[in-house]
Amino acid sequence: MKSLREALVEAKQSGRALGHFNISDLAGLKAIVAAARELGVPVVIGVSEGEREFLGVREVAALVRTLREELQHPIYLNADHTHSLEKAIEAARAGFDEIIFDASKLPLEENIRQTKAAVLSIRAVNPEIVIEGEIGYIGSSSEIMESVPEGAALTEGALTTPEEAVRFVAETGVDVLAPAVGNMHGLLASMVRGETHKELNIERIKALAAVVNIPMTLHGGSGTADEGFVAAVKAGMTIVHVNTEIRLAWRRGLEASLAKDKNEVAPYKILPGAVLAVQKVVEDRLRLFNGL
Amino acid sequence: MKSLREALVEAKQSGRALGHFNISDLAGLKAIVAAARELGVPVVIGVSEGEREFLGVREVAALVRTLREELQHPIYLNADHTHSLEKAIEAARAGFDEIIFDASKLPLEENIRQTKAAVLSIRAVNPEIVIEGEIGYIGSSSEIMESVPEGAALTEGALTTPEEAVRFVAETGVDVLAPAVGNMHGLLASMVRGETHKELNIERIKALAAVVNIPMTLHGGSGTADEGFVAAVKAGMTIVHVNTEIRLAWRRGLEASLAKDKNEVAPYKILPGAVLAVQKVVEDRLRLFNGL
Repeated sequence: MKSLREALVEAKQSGRALGHFNISDLAGLKAIVAAARELGVPVVIGVSEGEREFLGVREVAALVRTLREELQHPIYLNADHTHSLEKAIEAARAGFDEIIFDASKLPLEENIRQTKAAVLSIRAVNPEIVIEGEIGYIGSSSEIMESVPEGAALTEGALTTPEEAVRFVAETGVDVLAPAVGNMHGLLASMVRGETHKELNIERIKALAAVVNIPMTLHGGSGTADEGFVAAVKAGMTIVHVNTEIRLAWRRGLEASLAKDKNEVAPYKILPGAVLAVQKVVEDRLRLFNGL
Repeated sequence: MKSLREALVEAKQSGRALGHFNISDLAGLKAIVAAARELGVPVVIGVSEGEREFLGVREVAALVRTLREELQHPIYLNADHTHSLEKAIEAARAGFDEIIFDASKLPLEENIRQTKAAVLSIRAVNPEIVIEGEIGYIGSSSEIMESVPEGAALTEGALTTPEEAVRFVAETGVDVLAPAVGNMHGLLASMVRGETHKELNIERIKALAAVVNIPMTLHGGSGTADEGFVAAVKAGMTIVHVNTEIRLAWRRGLEASLAKDKNEVAPYKILPGAVLAVQKVVEDRLRLFNGL
């Protein structure tokens, strides 16, 4: 089985991106794994601090490890948006493949200082773990929102510059960089209605990719138009995160399943509605990211 | 940590029963574990063949093992109603604490023959696994039903006799016996409305307990009145299964949670509604079974 580090090198070289999808239950996990197996591509399962709190850190690690061994499929586990060193170390000890240390809400100097310290501490637990750092606050909620979150770096002047990116990578020693390039966490209600899409700054991604010699991640991918995803991967993104879209599919699939049979009470007969709805979104996204 | 075998001996000696609750998702598992920890009592997590198919046999075993180790709480895992030797062996290899080999729909002679063969095969994988056998068909669906399932042994003449029980235990070598004593899988719609309850034959439980020298299990406990449960445990039941009641609580808790905030899409913020609803039922039942 390839390590996540090897899978990233391979994806970067071949101009593909790894899809990263968040879970907080088994239906989501089953859906993502089924989609990745269907297409024969590697996949990253993400769990934020809130998602980990619900799933259990060691429990989700045991679950993903067991699935990976049983299916012999490259399924990786990422500690998404980890804000404290304590939670980063906890994930490292539980056997996660990747940890995103997220101090992006802080000024760049302080972000660099904290991320560098986290890199050293995580490597001391396990040097194989892929560590990602972030520059530029892009919101923190994978939800449906009425308006852009306060302080989100969406205007051109607020996007990550090549100079900031080079300095951040050199000084922190991260393996993967998540820049602000017009992306944002969550979905606006207008995006759910299909009236608007996220507008990524593809030129900025290209400019960053030209000077940053490590893989880059696009966070907050939900609500990006198909052509936006394709352009972002082509411009240099090696991991793409999608969360809110699959959460929405989960809720709608579950509601449809509950409505179908009012007398059904067995979770394993109700949850497949959520599984199939999520699986469809994940398959569509994985096709785009992998040029299929 | 006590083994399930030891926990059964202890429960039998002190006139308590272990509560057994089925799951097919994480919300159920979290709820049951929280209830057992709250009351400080051991608990058995059950997964039927259908539930195992959804959860994954090795995956649910990894999950329960990880939780047990982390929490240092006696949480046991049972392969509920296993109808084929192949699935029994699969569960044994995955590390289950208990396996219920269920050939109860067959005539007694054939039930004994198949159960005896299963006992030998399971012991060959791991002699520590607690093996339960069943006499008397009591339905197979943990659902809401309009009428009693066809062929269910509910009339007095159809209940398990002491002679049958003694012979079955002696010839099969099972560790635990599940007899038909007026219990039934599933819930009638009238029980959901609270108009009727299951009527257990307490005298028959006493008569069986007087001659059977191993622990006995009460299946299909959902819908039994509180005093029925207390009497059944006092009469000699050492494990009590509840499934349909917690499935109903899961669905109702989930629906209430979905209705509360139409814009919420994060599973880990929606599922706690199901967790709390299930936890309440489990706690109520565990109090009765443990004399608390």
